[in-house]
Amino acid sequence: MALDEFGLIRQYFDWPPQHPATVRGVGDDAALLTQESSQQLVITTDTLLYQRHFDDHISPHDLGWKSLAVSLSDLAAMAATPTAYTLALSLPALDTAWLSGFSQGLREATMCYAVDLVGGDTTRGPLAITITAMGCVVPGQALLRSGAQVGDAVWVSGTLGDAALALALGPSAPPELRSRLDRPEPRVEAASTLRDRLHAGLDVSDGLSSDLQHMLAASGVGACVEWDQLPRSESFRQAAASDEVKQHCLLHGGDDYELLVSAPSGHDLQRACPGTRWTRIGRIESTPGLRLDWGQGRVEPLLPAAWNHFA
Amino acid sequence: MALDEFGLIRQYFDWPPQHPATVRGVGDDAALLTQESSQQLVITTDTLLYQRHFDDHISPHDLGWKSLAVSLSDLAAMAATPTAYTLALSLPALDTAWLSGFSQGLREATMCYAVDLVGGDTTRGPLAITITAMGCVVPGQALLRSGAQVGDAVWVSGTLGDAALALALGPSAPPELRSRLDRPEPRVEAASTLRDRLHAGLDVSDGLSSDLQHMLAASGVGACVEWDQLPRSESFRQAAASDEVKQHCLLHGGDDYELLVSAPSGHDLQRACPGTRWTRIGRIESTPGLRLDWGQGRVEPLLPAAWNHFA
Repeated sequence: MALDEFGLIRQYFDWPPQHPATVRGVGDDAALLTQESSQQLVITTDTLLYQRHFDDHISPHDLGWKSLAVSLSDLAAMAATPTAYTLALSLPALDTAWLSGFSQGLREATMCYAVDLVGGDTTRGPLAITITAMGCVVPGQALLRSGAQVGDAVWVSGTLGDAALALALGPSAPPELRSRLDRPEPRVEAASTLRDRLHAGLDVSDGLSSDLQHMLAASGVGACVEWDQLPRSESFRQAAASDEVKQHCLLHGGDDYELLVSAPSGHDLQRACPGTRWTRIGRIESTPGLRLDWGQGRVEPLLPAAWNHFA
Repeated sequence: MALDEFGLIRQYFDWPPQHPATVRGVGDDAALLTQESSQQLVITTDTLLYQRHFDDHISPHDLGWKSLAVSLSDLAAMAATPTAYTLALSLPALDTAWLSGFSQGLREATMCYAVDLVGGDTTRGPLAITITAMGCVVPGQALLRSGAQVGDAVWVSGTLGDAALALALGPSAPPELRSRLDRPEPRVEAASTLRDRLHAGLDVSDGLSSDLQHMLAASGVGACVEWDQLPRSESFRQAAASDEVKQHCLLHGGDDYELLVSAPSGHDLQRACPGTRWTRIGRIESTPGLRLDWGQGRVEPLLPAAWNHFA
């Protein structure tokens, strides 16, 4: 017997709730969650589309992981604690091997970040995954893009450019870079741990040049970042790619899902949050726009060169 | 200059919040909403896909309306009050005429039902619309599918089969039927008004036979509905279609977005909720399964014949 839409949901996506807030998950017209009165609700929606955001190089298992991870990264960038999500899945055919892998990867991320899949929709169509993730934050504590102040230091978590370099290298990418592209790890606790020391923040999904511009525009300030300070992983340094490609990946590469924050200059984020690598990469300035300091006095404008769906 | 993704959102989908719960809508990594401590959060996700859920017969304006309406219908069926939603929009090209119409229709529904568009994602790809809608309900007051009891009466709001008949008639469908298909009106207040009188409920989106089965399965009961009682609109009665087509539309047609509820037999829903047409169409029985009473003693099993994406 062919597996129908309801059977598909039961078999692959109906997992027992693990979060105390989940009153009712998959199976009714809508899901029911308890609201904590002392908290605000934080919501984000992301779509991953076949041939646009991913291709056949990613395994269904990793794609399941990544689909949730990218949405949790948005919540992390708000300094929010994730609680639940819904999944809208469009599939060209009922491919049980694909579904099994995707479901396992998604469940792995679901368990790892202690959230619940509470609902969604499955349709037959071009392969596309849309996740709406929810979390909570104490009122006034959400980390916005708009709080950066002149004199702040600009910090970034982890390393930059790994995912973009993996994409550029294709099948020859070393596994450490490939896993940065295929299995990003959202910085779920870092921003909330550091919240009191931060003025503004977002996650690096479109690339440093593009995302930092978003913060500057929202805050009405400018910034200068130092080329020498941009954090490279050991795999990035050793990878067989030209300087031009690496430069592009560092400055403009997306899919890193690291946190990019501004903090008053007196704070040492590395000391305050030792579990995550933190690098001070620049400073917030009053002159609008984003500049790159190449060292030895050479400072040039840094223009966004990120992917734009409708450019 | 080409309109980019961010410009697209600003131009077509960045509207001032009208709901007091919206702290921050479109424009940051995620949206921020105030939670009401005395309420539970209700969440639903629906996808509308080109060539599957709609075709070129629907105007972009009506499609904008319908995209939100179908999600609000799920909240209505939970007896919840809608508050906010996110929109994931996948578009094959930047068609400003389409975007303008879609945006206007979506905004019309947004204003009409007093909700806020608080976030989303736009991508370039096959035309698809995924909306995740949120609402609130007093704890314990959500209307579930699982509460139907033997002896209950089964009631339905409005009329059945209009949308399916419009689809079957195509371009020759009269405007009243066509608007039932293209501009459904979710019964946002009816279920919450009647909540204390109801045992179970859901919305008729897949068709009477299929949706009533969902309630019966969740409640562990059976039901018998009376053919003569199924509510037909005047346009439905007069439409030029065969008895076979009309019968199929009434029993199995989807897209009506009416409420289907079970209530203790003593209650008169029409009297309790006079603003909406209510019809008692059958009764909940202990014998499992769904039966149709054709009249004059002829009772037959009624099997679901609804659309199934993966059958």
